[in-house]
Amino acid sequence: MSTKRIIVIGGSAAGPKAASKARRMDENAEITIFQKSSDLSMASCGYPYYIGGFFDDRNQLLCSPAGVVRDSKFFWNAKKINTKVNTEVTAIDRKNKRIEFIDIITREKGSAEYDKLVIATGSKPRKPSVPGIELDGVTALQSLPDADYLRKVRDEGKIKRAVVIGGGLIGIETCEALHLAGIEITLIELLPQLLTFLDRQMAKLVEKYVQSKANVILENGVISFLGENGKLIAVKLQNGTEIPCELAVVAIGVIPDCTLAKEAGLEIGKTGGIKVDEFMQTTDNDIYAVGDCVQIPNLVSGNYVHAPYGDLANLQGRVAGENIISGNVAKFQGTIQTGICKVFDYGVGSTGLSEHAAIKAGILNIETVVNASLDKPGFMQGKLLVTKLVVEIAHGLILGAQVLGFGDVSKQVAIWAMAIKGKLTVNDMVNADLPYAPPYSLAIDHSIATAHIMQNKLNGFFTGISAEHFKEKLDKKDLMVLLDVRNPDEYEQMRLGVGEKLIPLGQLRKRMEEIPEDKNTEIITWCKISLRGYEASLILQANGYNNVKVLEGGIMAWPYGREK
Amino acid sequence: MSTKRIIVIGGSAAGPKAASKARRMDENAEITIFQKSSDLSMASCGYPYYIGGFFDDRNQLLCSPAGVVRDSKFFWNAKKINTKVNTEVTAIDRKNKRIEFIDIITREKGSAEYDKLVIATGSKPRKPSVPGIELDGVTALQSLPDADYLRKVRDEGKIKRAVVIGGGLIGIETCEALHLAGIEITLIELLPQLLTFLDRQMAKLVEKYVQSKANVILENGVISFLGENGKLIAVKLQNGTEIPCELAVVAIGVIPDCTLAKEAGLEIGKTGGIKVDEFMQTTDNDIYAVGDCVQIPNLVSGNYVHAPYGDLANLQGRVAGENIISGNVAKFQGTIQTGICKVFDYGVGSTGLSEHAAIKAGILNIETVVNASLDKPGFMQGKLLVTKLVVEIAHGLILGAQVLGFGDVSKQVAIWAMAIKGKLTVNDMVNADLPYAPPYSLAIDHSIATAHIMQNKLNGFFTGISAEHFKEKLDKKDLMVLLDVRNPDEYEQMRLGVGEKLIPLGQLRKRMEEIPEDKNTEIITWCKISLRGYEASLILQANGYNNVKVLEGGIMAWPYGREK
Repeated sequence: MSTKRIIVIGGSAAGPKAASKARRMDENAEITIFQKSSDLSMASCGYPYYIGGFFDDRNQLLCSPAGVVRDSKFFWNAKKINTKVNTEVTAIDRKNKRIEFIDIITREKGSAEYDKLVIATGSKPRKPSVPGIELDGVTALQSLPDADYLRKVRDEGKIKRAVVIGGGLIGIETCEALHLAGIEITLIELLPQLLTFLDRQMAKLVEKYVQSKANVILENGVISFLGENGKLIAVKLQNGTEIPCELAVVAIGVIPDCTLAKEAGLEIGKTGGIKVDEFMQTTDNDIYAVGDCVQIPNLVSGNYVHAPYGDLANLQGRVAGENIISGNVAKFQGTIQTGICKVFDYGVGSTGLSEHAAIKAGILNIETVVNASLDKPGFMQGKLLVTKLVVEIAHGLILGAQVLGFGDVSKQVAIWAMAIKGKLTVNDMVNADLPYAPPYSLAIDHSIATAHIMQNKLNGFFTGISAEHFKEKLDKKDLMVLLDVRNPDEYEQMRLGVGEKLIPLGQLRKRMEEIPEDKNTEIITWCKISLRGYEASLILQANGYNNVKVLEGGIMAWPYGREK
Repeated sequence: MSTKRIIVIGGSAAGPKAASKARRMDENAEITIFQKSSDLSMASCGYPYYIGGFFDDRNQLLCSPAGVVRDSKFFWNAKKINTKVNTEVTAIDRKNKRIEFIDIITREKGSAEYDKLVIATGSKPRKPSVPGIELDGVTALQSLPDADYLRKVRDEGKIKRAVVIGGGLIGIETCEALHLAGIEITLIELLPQLLTFLDRQMAKLVEKYVQSKANVILENGVISFLGENGKLIAVKLQNGTEIPCELAVVAIGVIPDCTLAKEAGLEIGKTGGIKVDEFMQTTDNDIYAVGDCVQIPNLVSGNYVHAPYGDLANLQGRVAGENIISGNVAKFQGTIQTGICKVFDYGVGSTGLSEHAAIKAGILNIETVVNASLDKPGFMQGKLLVTKLVVEIAHGLILGAQVLGFGDVSKQVAIWAMAIKGKLTVNDMVNADLPYAPPYSLAIDHSIATAHIMQNKLNGFFTGISAEHFKEKLDKKDLMVLLDVRNPDEYEQMRLGVGEKLIPLGQLRKRMEEIPEDKNTEIITWCKISLRGYEASLILQANGYNNVKVLEGGIMAWPYGREK
C-alpha cells in the first residue's frame, strides 16, 4: 500500500484536529497542514479572556494541555505532521489533485499533491461597508493579531472609550473584555434585541443586565467611522448620533470563507457554507471540509445552518480525520446549535430552537413556558436562573431551551441539550434523575421544575402569560385585575407597580370577596417566581374564575422597568 | 361529588409534596398530614451544611423559597392543608379505611378516616448493636434534633475529636461538616472502600483526598463505644484499636421505615421497602407510598432498589399527589440512582451502574474507561475531572458514569444521567452538542472526550489498563516495559516511580531502538492524563508491538502512592 498524502488547508481548530486524528489512524500517512497565519491551533474562543486579563501569558492560547506551544516543531515531533505556516493556498486543482500555494513572506510559490484534501478555511468577519472602516482604531476580534491589538489596548491603558458594533456572542464577550480593561463601552446593535438566538423577552433580560455595565443602543447601525489624522475619533450612527471613541470593535458576525472551494467548483450551500454530507465529504469524493467554512443541518428544524462553533469544528475535524483514512465510517449528524456565553457574572445559553426560530422553521404547534428560580437552595447561596422552554405540543417533544442568570446556566443548557439529543418529551423530563445535593441544586432541579410547569400548562392546569404579552396588554390598557400574591415585606422591597393589588397567597381564600364578582374577569397573578402565582390561579379557578393567567417567571423574569 | 378525605403519614419531604400537589389538583379535598416530629418540610439534605456553618439561621432549613417557615400555620393558610405535628400514627385499619394516632406530647389518642392514604414514613438510621450506643456523645445525623445537637457541638467548640462511622454519602458529608467545626476526625468504614456506589479505583481517589482532611480507616468496624459517667470517651474497633473521642456519628446507612405498612398487611419488597407500582400505589388501591419507605426499580438493571434520595422523594410525592385525586394518570418509572456529594473542595457523583453494580446485575458484556482532564481550559483555571464510564459492548449503550474531582462534577453527572435517560450510545455521545465557551468547558467537553476514548477502545484502536489492574501487575512483579511519555520537566515535578522509562512523545519515533526488540513485549504507556500515552501506544503498534496498553486516566487518575 502506498503512503497516503493528506493535505489540510487551515491550521486553526478543525484542520489540526482532522490532521491529528488522521495521524492516529495511520502512522504512515504523509500529512501537511497549510496555514495562512503564523500561528497554529489557536484557542480563538479564549481571545476575549486574554484581552480581559483573565490570564497574561499569550502562549496559553497556543498550548497543548501539557503546556507545550503547538508550533511547527511540536506538530512534527509529537504528531509527525508537516505544517507550512505563513503559507496561503491559492488554488485547488481537483483534476490533478493538487493545490497551489504561496509563502506570504518570501512570495515563493509551490504546489503539492494530495490523495485526500481537507478544507478548513474557517470564516471571516463580516465588515460593514461604511466610510472610515480603514481607520486606525477600528478592528474586529477574529484573529490572533486582533487579540494582540486589543490586549495592547488593555496593557497601555490609554483608550478610555470604545464602541462595540454588534450584540451577538462576540460583541457581548468583547464588551466584558474591554470593560475589564477599564474602558467605557457603548454597544450598538442594528436589530431590536441582543443575542438573536434568544427570544425577545429573554434578550431583554440580558439587555437590562448589560445596561448596568455598558451603554446599549438598539435598532441603530453605524453609517461611518470618523477620524482625524487616520485615527478613529468617533462612530456615527444612522440616527445621526456621534459617539466619541478611540476604539471600535466590529463584531457583526462571520461568514464562511469558501473562496477556494467555490473557485474549485465545489458546491456551496444556501447559507454560504460548503456543502458536506454526514461524513464531512464535499461534492468531490477526495475533498472533505470541516469547521466554520461548512454548512451543517440543524437537527431540530432540519434546515441547513452556518454554525461557527469551536466545539463543532473539533468534532467535525475528528470525523473527517477518521474518514479520510478509513473510508466513510464516522458520521457527524449535525447540530442543535447549543451555545453559551459569559456576560460578566451572568451566563446566557441556548440549545435547540427558540420560539421564533421554531416558527421561522414552520413548526407552529408549540408551547413555551418561562421558569425562574434559584439554582440551589437559598441557604447555599443559590443564584437566579431563568429558563424559557419550547416544546412541540402533540408529543411534548422538547425543541429548545434558553437559560440565563447568575446561577449555573452551563449545567442547565447541557441538560436540555442532552434532552434534545435523546429526543425526550416533557413527560420524560418531569421525572429526570439528576444529581441532587444542596451545594449543587434544588431538590427539584430547575430543569425538572421547568418541565413540571410545562406539563401543568400542557395539561391545562393553568394559563400562562409571558412578560412580553402582559406588557403589551398593560400598554394597551386592557382591563385586568392584577394580583401580586407575595407577602407585604416582599412587596415593600420590590414590586412591578403596574396597578396590582397585593393579596398574600395565605389570605386569598379569605379575601375572595375583594375579587370582582364577574367570573369572566381577566385576572393576572404573580409572585417572585410565580409558584405562588400558580397556586393563586388554582384557588381562583376553583372559585369559578375562568380567565386567570399566571405571569410566567414572576417578577424575577420581568425584563421591563419596575416601580421598585 | 363528596369531598375527598386524604391522609398523608409523614411530613418531611415526599409527604408534604404529595399533599401540596393533591391540593393543587383539588381545592376542595380535605387533606391532613400526620407528622411524628414537631417540624415540617425539613430540608434534611441541608443538615450537614448547617452543622458545617455554611449558614447560621436554622429556620432556613424550614423555609419556603419565599422565606416563610413551613409550619402548621403556613400549611393551612397557603395550602389549606391540616397538619398534625408531634402526632404518631400507630395503625392503619385498611378495612375501615381509618388510621389510629396518638399525640406524643399529650398522649391523647384519636382516629381519622381516609378515602386515599399516602404513606411517607421515610427511613430510619441503621444502628450497630454494640455496647455503649446509648452513651452521651453517640448520635446519628438523620433528624433535625440530630442536626441541632451537632450544630451545638460546633457552636460550643468544646469537642476536639470525633469518629464518624460509615463512609457513605452522609458519613462523608458529616466529615466535612465536623472538620469545618475544627474537630479532628477519624472515619471508620467496615468495607474496603468508601462510597460503595463507586468502583474501587474511583473510591480510592476519594479516599486519597479525604485522607488529607481526616484519618480514614477501612475494613474495620466498631465493636463498642467506651464511656465514663455516661459520656463517650472512645470508640473501640474490631482490631482492638481504641480511638479516643468525645463524639461519634453513626452513619452506616438507613433502612425503610415500613412498620405501619407491614402491620397493615401491605406487601414489602425484598429490599425492605414498600412495594409500589409506577403510580406509587401499594398493594392496596387506596393507599399510596412515597419517599424513603418504598422500593423502586433501577431503570438500568431492572432490579428493585431502596433509593433514599431527597429529589426522588419529591418527584414521587408529586406523582402520588396527582394520582390520588385524578386516578392513576401520572407515572414514576424508577431511578437510575443519580447521586452527588461534596467532599470539601471535591465533588463525587455517579449515575446508572458502576462496573461492579453492572456485574452484580448480571450485565457482563461491558467495557469501561477512565478519563482524566481539566473541566475547562488551563487559562481559565480549569480543574481536574476524572470519569469512569461503563457501557454495554453490543450496542455501546451507556450504562453508568462515575465522576469526581475539583472540577464541575455536577454538570458531568447531569450529562450522563440525561444520556442514560435518553438511552444514548457511545456513538450518540461522540458528537453531542454541549454548551462550549472557555469559562464553562473545554472545546471538546470532558464528557464527549470520555465518549471518544470509549469509542476508540470499542473500535480496538487501543487497549487500556486500569490503575487497579496495573497496580496488581506491579505487585505481582509482572515483566513489563513502562513508558512515561511526558516531558522531562513534568517528570521532575511528579512521577509514579514504578520503574518507568521516560521517553517524551516527541522523541518516541526517533528512540524506538530503546524499546526491546521483541514485538510481544508488554508495554504500558502513560502521561499526565494518557492522551499522549494513547498516541504513544499507536506509534508503538504501528512499529509492530502487539501488546501495548495505555494506563487509563494517566497519572491524574492514579489513586495509589507516587514516588513524586
